Amino acid sequence: MRVALGVSYRGQNYLGWQSQPNGKTVQDHLEKALAQFADEPIRTICAGRTDTGVHGLNQVVHFDTTRDRELFSWVRGVNRYLPPDMAVQWSVFPPEDFHARNHARARRYAYLLLESAVRPAMEAGGVGWVFRPLNQAEMQAAAVHLVGEHDFSAFRAAECQAASPVKQLRRIEIARRGAYWRFEFEASAFLHHMVRNLMGALIAVGAGTRPADWVRDVLASRDRSQSAPTFSPDGLYFLGPRYDASLQIPEHTPAMDWLP
Amino acid sequence: MRVALGVSYRGQNYLGWQSQPNGKTVQDHLEKALAQFADEPIRTICAGRTDTGVHGLNQVVHFDTTRDRELFSWVRGVNRYLPPDMAVQWSVFPPEDFHARNHARARRYAYLLLESAVRPAMEAGGVGWVFRPLNQAEMQAAAVHLVGEHDFSAFRAAECQAASPVKQLRRIEIARRGAYWRFEFEASAFLHHMVRNLMGALIAVGAGTRPADWVRDVLASRDRSQSAPTFSPDGLYFLGPRYDASLQIPEHTPAMDWLP
Repeated sequence: MRVALGVSYRGQNYLGWQSQPNGKTVQDHLEKALAQFADEPIRTICAGRTDTGVHGLNQVVHFDTTRDRELFSWVRGVNRYLPPDMAVQWSVFPPEDFHARNHARARRYAYLLLESAVRPAMEAGGVGWVFRPLNQAEMQAAAVHLVGEHDFSAFRAAECQAASPVKQLRRIEIARRGAYWRFEFEASAFLHHMVRNLMGALIAVGAGTRPADWVRDVLASRDRSQSAPTFSPDGLYFLGPRYDASLQIPEHTPAMDWLP
Repeated sequence: MRVALGVSYRGQNYLGWQSQPNGKTVQDHLEKALAQFADEPIRTICAGRTDTGVHGLNQVVHFDTTRDRELFSWVRGVNRYLPPDMAVQWSVFPPEDFHARNHARARRYAYLLLESAVRPAMEAGGVGWVFRPLNQAEMQAAAVHLVGEHDFSAFRAAECQAASPVKQLRRIEIARRGAYWRFEFEASAFLHHMVRNLMGALIAVGAGTRPADWVRDVLASRDRSQSAPTFSPDGLYFLGPRYDASLQIPEHTPAMDWLP
């Protein structure tokens, strides 16, 4: 039978999502815990792979198992075998053809940024940092150029494996609470490093290094070398995918209430 | 000359504030960084010692030095020698008789608590956890019994070295944001483990294990064995001391805007 899980994790201690021979990835730890709980090997497919240091709040995975276990035991039982900074948040028995990646209609990311003369300490690893004050109106003017369906080659990592650089960026929201900025992005899908590359450009505009219109020119150039450097992974959170409502896949986990 | 600093740290990786021969405490790391920056040995006195695992957002220290350095260099220069989860937030040249502990007129703590069927992951080490729903009205009714000047022996650790168990608890505020509860405490001073012991009692009431009036009886008993167990250090944050306004010691650090 097919099972879908929502997983939260702090990315700081892992070499990203995707399984590696060294076993130090989120997928490796999850699949090991699933195998221990189910007493059979289990391979998972996720909604969106995250890079080294990037956090996941509602990473959705699916897998098939021969075990017939009670629904919530896929949360409680698997969590016994996971490290403290990873936990399954919910479990669903989806339709047999449910596919965590292919059925996702959108993905959401948040980027958290500390604006302060002093680097972060308490929340180190969980937030990006700028010491220069950022101008919200300028960043919002730049964001207007980015929203919509575009060729995002200028914000795409060289190693990106996506079939097409054309994505639909549906929403960029910029808000602040005290010293912390929160950027939220929603798109049909994201290219490799796309959010961190967009953040690099938005921060260049917010800090006054570049005018807001420069972002439009960078986008039009489709040339990665025209844009700003890739920003730190520390403040990047994969909030999770969105599916057709009929699938009844949860879109919220408690940790989303934790973020500024 | 005398220098005062405000320090933020994540307590997870340290054996509390107070210096130990093993060097694994916050004070040890801070004094080592100060000595490296000032190129002379420096001993600090803090406003409130924190236990293993407890976080500090505005821990205030003072020390004397023969070095005549520019004010902000005591922030920027010292931070170069501190680990990523500790950072000096501000520096002040206070009156020569300023004393971080003796001059503090009040101290503030926050306790953050996740209410969820599933344990924390993203914020593990930074939040306490209850899986049973808590009743806010009952906890607030219990808090009313605690506020005021009382003998807090029932909430005092056996190893507490305070001269008197009588403290003035000025304020308990209880709020929630989504799945997270925030408890804020302000008192003239706190006994050892006092906030964690108060949290144990408030949670027993909130979860329905005890009625609100039971807290009044526990307080009156002055008997630690009558109360609930000491709650986890994970969600405990020392927000910092308050001094006479004329001293112009900062009471806010950016990380305070991070907490729910």
